[in-house]
Amino acid sequence: MSEVRRDIVTDTWVIIDTENDRIPVPPPSDVTVSGDCPFCEGNESRTPNEIYAVRSKGAANSPGWQLRVVPNINPILRVEGELQKHGVGVYDMVTGIGANEVIVETPEHITNFFELSEEQIALVMRTYRQRIEDLHKDKRMRYILIFKNHGPLAGASTMVHTHSDLIALPATPVRVKQKLSGTQEYYSYKERCLFCDIIQQEIEMGDRLIFQSEHFVVITPYASRFPFEILIVPKRHAFSYKVIDENEIKDLSRVLKVVCKTMFDILHDPPFNLILCDSPNLLPKANYWATIKSDFHWHIEITPRLYRTTGFELGTGFYINHMAPEKAAGIFRERL
Amino acid sequence: MSEVRRDIVTDTWVIIDTENDRIPVPPPSDVTVSGDCPFCEGNESRTPNEIYAVRSKGAANSPGWQLRVVPNINPILRVEGELQKHGVGVYDMVTGIGANEVIVETPEHITNFFELSEEQIALVMRTYRQRIEDLHKDKRMRYILIFKNHGPLAGASTMVHTHSDLIALPATPVRVKQKLSGTQEYYSYKERCLFCDIIQQEIEMGDRLIFQSEHFVVITPYASRFPFEILIVPKRHAFSYKVIDENEIKDLSRVLKVVCKTMFDILHDPPFNLILCDSPNLLPKANYWATIKSDFHWHIEITPRLYRTTGFELGTGFYINHMAPEKAAGIFRERL
Repeated sequence: MSEVRRDIVTDTWVIIDTENDRIPVPPPSDVTVSGDCPFCEGNESRTPNEIYAVRSKGAANSPGWQLRVVPNINPILRVEGELQKHGVGVYDMVTGIGANEVIVETPEHITNFFELSEEQIALVMRTYRQRIEDLHKDKRMRYILIFKNHGPLAGASTMVHTHSDLIALPATPVRVKQKLSGTQEYYSYKERCLFCDIIQQEIEMGDRLIFQSEHFVVITPYASRFPFEILIVPKRHAFSYKVIDENEIKDLSRVLKVVCKTMFDILHDPPFNLILCDSPNLLPKANYWATIKSDFHWHIEITPRLYRTTGFELGTGFYINHMAPEKAAGIFRERL
Repeated sequence: MSEVRRDIVTDTWVIIDTENDRIPVPPPSDVTVSGDCPFCEGNESRTPNEIYAVRSKGAANSPGWQLRVVPNINPILRVEGELQKHGVGVYDMVTGIGANEVIVETPEHITNFFELSEEQIALVMRTYRQRIEDLHKDKRMRYILIFKNHGPLAGASTMVHTHSDLIALPATPVRVKQKLSGTQEYYSYKERCLFCDIIQQEIEMGDRLIFQSEHFVVITPYASRFPFEILIVPKRHAFSYKVIDENEIKDLSRVLKVVCKTMFDILHDPPFNLILCDSPNLLPKANYWATIKSDFHWHIEITPRLYRTTGFELGTGFYINHMAPEKAAGIFRERL
């Protein structure tokens, strides 16, 4: 069982694996190949039993699937057990309750997300919605984070078969709280959604606009933390990914395929993270963030990880970015 | 001139280099060697003119020094110009006023900080105090961050000659604000300094205590974000590094030398960051954080960077750490 510990000074939480005894060494650079890959069709016995699957034939944990969701084989948080909070002197701790799943995006050994077909990406996007809906039923799960790590510099493991990671947390993350505060503050002043205003302004100004589709706006954010950082925002105001509809899913799949392909071409297969930024799990009698449905607006962040963060980022929480987002957006527009 | 842009959603600031046009490429892996190193004695003409130096002989910018402070040759912020804030639609921006200095810690081509003599480290520690005192006279400089990046994975440049970086910022960083809030909240409830209570508790509990010297306590923090993270806290309550005295400087130099040497031995020359966590520059008529002298307590964070952060850390601001700080402290104690 891991512990979720609160840094009392900064209100940051850290999941500590209290069972590991090994001194860390650099991760091995050898990567899984097709025949040897536990995520490939036919190797189902090499993963824990599936939680969810889209399959045209076959029994659970056998071939015949298009997409599988399995528990992480080394989960950092577990569903079983009671959520307990207790103090250790001045400190606070929560038992490591949560969930840690892997969404295997294809039965084939494809290593780049954009190489999936639009239909296959749509399956992945529907699965994101299904997993959030399902996990939100468990009120211990305060926040569901779905993300992708591509390339070692973005923290990817040696499992190169394209997949998404899901971590369900027993506390609302500090970055999510910051976003909720920022959007709530704006709404209480303007009575308008901050993200709705941002996309309108970006469409009007145009210099950070990469493109817009029927349902989405794709921009480089004004305060981009990383060169070529990308923000994808739905045009329809919606506080949670849970309410995405079928037309939006199909459109988003096209958008993600073209954005990831263009980023691959411009930056030569860069390491990157993709993060679905959703609302927390609302509690039934929540007056905490009671206005979240009008304030917050879900979105996707894609962050190429070309530079390592330094003591500056660690010490401040600020970032230094050597590429103006207006220039990055221009380069994207030329290559689309 | 760079721009300091505020992310309106999260209240994070990003320094954007608006002049650069190059698409980033991975940094070159070749490193500077002795004869070719601009930081070595005799090569003074290859750095900008010195801002400050400790020298036994010679004119400014000539040999004969023990320590030099020079402007960064590619400063991300500059002292010249007027601090202007303005809006860009819904966004906020500040002109890139600040300072970006390099503290060259020795005239010899030494690449590991702990290989400096205790006397030489004491010169570095006195220089930290001198630079903060000097830069605090300029009230545009809201926060002075002094830090070290060691190794490419910790964001170090190819300049391997041991040095510290200094960035003076026109805004108080979000991580510093979080620490000020956390310590202020604790003080207002308990009427005691949080860091004073932490060091007392860590001495009593002992499992995260690496060692204590006459004036300092060295621990692995309860919510360590990274394996083998180290926190060095002065025993004397002091809100700012500016008030460190000569006895404390000598003791701190001994502590840093032994801590960095032990970390080098255990983790085989790991990449790491060292961060001096100080108070912001107090304004003359500050009622903002008026209690900072009683709440806040300066300290030093040393963070080995053995793992890359993933989409999880980026998306949440939380961390996952696979080494319990109690175990790391035990390993440190065995090797001291």
